[in-house]
Parts: sequence; C-alpha cells; structure tokens
Amino acid sequence: MKANVTKKTLSEGLSLLERVIPGRSSNPLLTALKVETTEAGLTLSGTNLEIDLSCFVPAEVQQPQNFVVPAHLFAQIVRNLGGELVELEITGNELSVRSGGSDFKLQTGDIEAYPPLSFPEHADVSLNAEELAKAFSSVRYAASNEAFQAVFRGIKLEHRPESARVVASDGYRVAIRDFPASGDGRNLIIPARSADELIRVLKDGEARFTYGEGLLSVTTDRVRMNLKLLDGDFPDYERVIPKDIKLQVTLPATALKEAVNRVAVLADKNANNRVEFLVSEGKLRLAAEGDYGRAQDTLDVVQGGSEPAMSLAFNARHVLDALGPIEGDAELLFSGSTSPAIFRAAGGGGYMAVMVTLRV
Amino acid sequence: MKANVTKKTLSEGLSLLERVIPGRSSNPLLTALKVETTEAGLTLSGTNLEIDLSCFVPAEVQQPQNFVVPAHLFAQIVRNLGGELVELEITGNELSVRSGGSDFKLQTGDIEAYPPLSFPEHADVSLNAEELAKAFSSVRYAASNEAFQAVFRGIKLEHRPESARVVASDGYRVAIRDFPASGDGRNLIIPARSADELIRVLKDGEARFTYGEGLLSVTTDRVRMNLKLLDGDFPDYERVIPKDIKLQVTLPATALKEAVNRVAVLADKNANNRVEFLVSEGKLRLAAEGDYGRAQDTLDVVQGGSEPAMSLAFNARHVLDALGPIEGDAELLFSGSTSPAIFRAAGGGGYMAVMVTLRV
Repeated sequence: MKANVTKKTLSEGLSLLERVIPGRSSNPLLTALKVETTEAGLTLSGTNLEIDLSCFVPAEVQQPQNFVVPAHLFAQIVRNLGGELVELEITGNELSVRSGGSDFKLQTGDIEAYPPLSFPEHADVSLNAEELAKAFSSVRYAASNEAFQAVFRGIKLEHRPESARVVASDGYRVAIRDFPASGDGRNLIIPARSADELIRVLKDGEARFTYGEGLLSVTTDRVRMNLKLLDGDFPDYERVIPKDIKLQVTLPATALKEAVNRVAVLADKNANNRVEFLVSEGKLRLAAEGDYGRAQDTLDVVQGGSEPAMSLAFNARHVLDALGPIEGDAELLFSGSTSPAIFRAAGGGGYMAVMVTLRV
Repeated sequence: MKANVTKKTLSEGLSLLERVIPGRSSNPLLTALKVETTEAGLTLSGTNLEIDLSCFVPAEVQQPQNFVVPAHLFAQIVRNLGGELVELEITGNELSVRSGGSDFKLQTGDIEAYPPLSFPEHADVSLNAEELAKAFSSVRYAASNEAFQAVFRGIKLEHRPESARVVASDGYRVAIRDFPASGDGRNLIIPARSADELIRVLKDGEARFTYGEGLLSVTTDRVRMNLKLLDGDFPDYERVIPKDIKLQVTLPATALKEAVNRVAVLADKNANNRVEFLVSEGKLRLAAEGDYGRAQDTLDVVQGGSEPAMSLAFNARHVLDALGPIEGDAELLFSGSTSPAIFRAAGGGGYMAVMVTLRV
C-alpha cells in the first residue's frame, strides 16, 4: 500500500476520529484507528463502543491494503508535519509517514483482532444537517451530564408533520428547538454526549438517518456514524410549559446576560445563585444578595400583559444558559411568581427555554 | 469618601493586585484589598506575604478615607460593569460601586487589623524595566518550580561593570541573559514565582531598586513591589559553560523547534524524551524512538568547527525550552558528545542556554 494525501484533508479526518477514539482504554484495541483503502482514498474509522465513526479521505492509493495504527499518535504526527503532502506506505508491520524531511515509522496493529464496524447503506429519513446541528447545540445545555435518570442525560428528537423538535431537560428546566423537517421519522433519545459529537460532524447538506435496534445511524457526505440510543420514557415536558402568560417583557438579550453576570457575582452560591427579577413600570430590576454584600441592576424593558408588576427569582446560572442561544431581543413570559417562565427569542426561530422559579 | 474613576484604569490596577492577593487564605485578612485615598487618586495594595504590591490609580476623590474590601469580588464586580465611569462611595461599613444602571454594596473590612505595608522612598540603583522583564522572561523556564534546593527555584541577578545578568538553573541546564546596565547593584536571588509577577508589572521606563534586609523593593511609575529574596549560594554555573567548541551549526530556530516537536511525539517519555542530534555534511538529523515506532527528520544547516561530525542526545523538552527565547537563526555549539552544549541566538543579543547531553 502506498498513498499520497494532502496533510489538510488527512488532518481534518483524523481530528474527527480523535474525539471518538479513546486515548487510553482497558481494551487497547479500541485506541486504534482502522484505515481501509481503495484506489480512491482512505476510510478512517474508530469506536468508543457508544459511537462508531467513519470518515472518508480522498487520496491516490496504489495496491490498497487495510491496517490499524495507534490513532492519537498517528494524528499527532500528521498534524505536526511540515509539508503539504503526506506519503503513506505499508512495509511489513510498519506504516511509514513521510513529508518534507520527516520520516516516521509506526508499528501497525493486528487488523484481524479489530472489532468489525458496519454502517447501513440505505436511509430511512433525511434532515437538514445544519438545522439539526443548530437545534442540538441550542438545547444541549439543559441535558444533565450526571443525572441518575438516563433520560435526563439525553436529547429527545421528535418528528411532527411538518417539523422536527429537539428537547432536553434536567428536571429543573426544559430547552426546546423546533425546525422545519419532512418525512416520517421515529421519536428517539440520543445521549447528550453523542449529540456533542454529532454537532461537531454535521456541517451542511443532508443528514440521512437509518434506524436500527436501539441504534441510530447518521450518514452525511463526509462521515458515517452509529449512535447507541437511550431507552426509557422522556418526561411529559409539555405539561410544564405555561399557557397563561400574565406579564411579558422584551429587552436585548445581551444587556440581560451582562446584567445577570454582574449581579451574580454577589449571589449566594449555596442558595442556587439566586437572582431576583422585579418587573414594574417598564423596568426590570435584578437583585442578588450574599455574604459580602448586595447587587442591583436596572434595565429598561418593553412590558406587556395583564399584571402590572411581578417579582420572581431564578438560578442565575440557568438564566444565562437559557439566554445563550438567543440573539437580538429576548422575550420573557411570566405566568406567576411561583410557576415556570418562558425565555425565547423575540422574533421566533423555534427556540424556547422553560425554567422553574426559585421559592420567594 | 466619594470617588470617580474610569473603569479601565481601575480594572487594570485591580488585575495586577488580583494575581498577588490570594483568593482564599487561612488568614482572611490577606484576601482583602487595601485602598488608600488622596484627592489625586486611589492607592491599591495587597500582599501574599512573599510579595507586597501597591499600584496607584488616578481618580477624583472627595473626603479621602481609607478602607479594605474583598479583593477578588471587588475586581470581578468592576470588570463586569457596563459603564465607562465608576462611582465609589463609603457609607458606614459599606462601599457602593455604581456605574450605569448597576449599584453594588460591598461590606468593608476592619482597616486597623490589616497588616501594615511599607514601601521605601529612596532608590539604590535603577535598571531599564523593559530589558529587565525581557531578561527574566527569557531565563524563567530553567528555574525549577519544585526543586528541593531553594536556589534552583530562584533567578540570580548579577551586576557587572557595564551590564547585568540574570541566570536560572535547575541543575540540568542553565539559562543566561545579559543586558546593558550601569550602577553599582548587589547580586541577589529572586524567587522565580516572584519574578513572574515582576515580569507582569514591568512595562517601560525605569525599575528602581531599593535593597533591604533579605528584601528587594522595585518601584516603577505605576507600581511598588517588595519581594522576599532567596538566601543561599547559587551554583557556580560558569564552570559548566563549555569553552572548547568543536562543532557548530546554524539554522532557523523555528525550523528546529518544529522538527523537534515532530520527532518528540515518538520519543520515550520514560527516557527523558530522548532525541538524538546527528550532525554531518551540512545536515542535522534528528531521531527519536519509542514503544510505537521511530521518527527521523533532516534539516539543512550551516556547519562549522574542527570536527566533521558529531552525535549527541538531548531531552526534547529542554531543547524546546532553550530555543523558546531565540528568534531568527539559532547557533548550536557542541563541545563533545558527552559534554554540555550551548544554544544561542545567532546575532548575539545576550541570551544563552547551556544543556547537559543525555548519555549515548
């Protein structure tokens, strides 16, 4: 096997695989990168047993031959090379990596021992890759990394007649994003950590879904990915979305983020970073208090709704998370001092955060 | 006390103090910032018992009054403020910090309990601040952060007739930088961690030194600093600087850094990251070998000296450190396979690294 490939395309492919393939593992086989070659290029693949990932890299290949090499070392070597072009060659049990004045010899592994990875050829449904990535990124914060209940560590994907919806929740807050989609897909729950990798891999074009047994396969023009799905019932989040909005304010999201960041410095870390929101007469007053002093910040808002004033309290951290995906103006919809509130982008766009209030 | 100050100048002063004043301490008094006021401005000061630091911030002050506040909280609040101008006011035991729509109240501490800090008024000798900072930065890497012997955790400053020299060593390598200086200063050893703060504080203009009992005070136009000095005998480093150079190569420092970085990926971490240097016929060949394979890189060099070829081995980490302060071409001076080597900038400039070779 002899291959010529540009450093740039090879590096890009390797950097995707590097995130999935573990650097260390009790099973050293899993730290390897599998390289399958045809005359058209290299197919790099790897797995961490939660995610299988495969990525095609165009190259000029002579006498194709498959091999496995230590993934992270190979990636690091390629990244550091000085030249633009990389020459790969297999001789016996060694992979040579040559570029400019550099010549590396890497021991190859036993390809027979490497676990078989298979990716489906057909697609059940197709989504816009960019919309899907944006939707996952917008709600990712609300999924827990540690929650005892597995569904709180996942992101639910729902298919509706003319749209799709992603939802994440840790039990205290819900983040939702709707986006246009067609086709008759299944509802499923993707582990949030796998969604992180999906976000990284999805660029533009189509994301083609294939449904398997407890498994979702996602294929784009560049990569193929198998994801283990989460089992279980996602909580009935629609129940907590308040319907009866009594007071509503609109203000620039950035101004609110900055002000919450400011007052949160003095908020009590042992009391949920409690920040009070007091709305009246076209002003939103934020207040926080802790061991070292107290903070207050006043912002002008456009106020609406049936109630003239309201006072609520939130976890400052959660407010900042909820505002994260909102650009331009934010709309805060309040249903009462002790019932959940909605934060969303003023111009629509499909994103919505629902948050519980802290006790007054 | 009522003061008007720009957010920018106050923030800059606080950020210097924040690095010295501990965030937590068994003695909570040490986490405080002391603010002394005159009609011309605020003098911010703090200490970690190794370094006392004081910084003047111009401000319009009415009814000057001194106070102490939690340093890190105060700095964080000021940094997050939205406005350009900050209004400070003392009322009873509270400091108000106001800007734009923000109003913070911070509890002040007991100023009587705060340890007295005093800075000398006269200067014994004066150095160029920029040269001094550059010299400390260049040799800092060679000082150890953990060495058992205190002098290896320090940087020596030597005064010579028309120049000054800073030297750091961890026992395996020596870094030296000479710079022009006049005046009759003392030789002393500054803890490397204190030198880090000095580097940060020294900008341009003069650094005025005042010698105390085991103490050095450094004054610039902006700041005043007391540093505890290290006691002890600095090793006789001049003894290890090789005099008899048998082979010498010149090449771009960047090319050598990149090549060492490349081959070091395969170097054995348990064998001092050993990288071999083989010089002959106008070529420098770097080679490294480890559990996963071997690496080789060939660079063109300008070669000189009496010996036609030489083979040596170094710790790759140490080579990269030694090359750090060198821009443009690097000159490597070899006195033999088993004796120390010199790395320095080809055009002079006062910097020199001396490194032991690894056993062949």
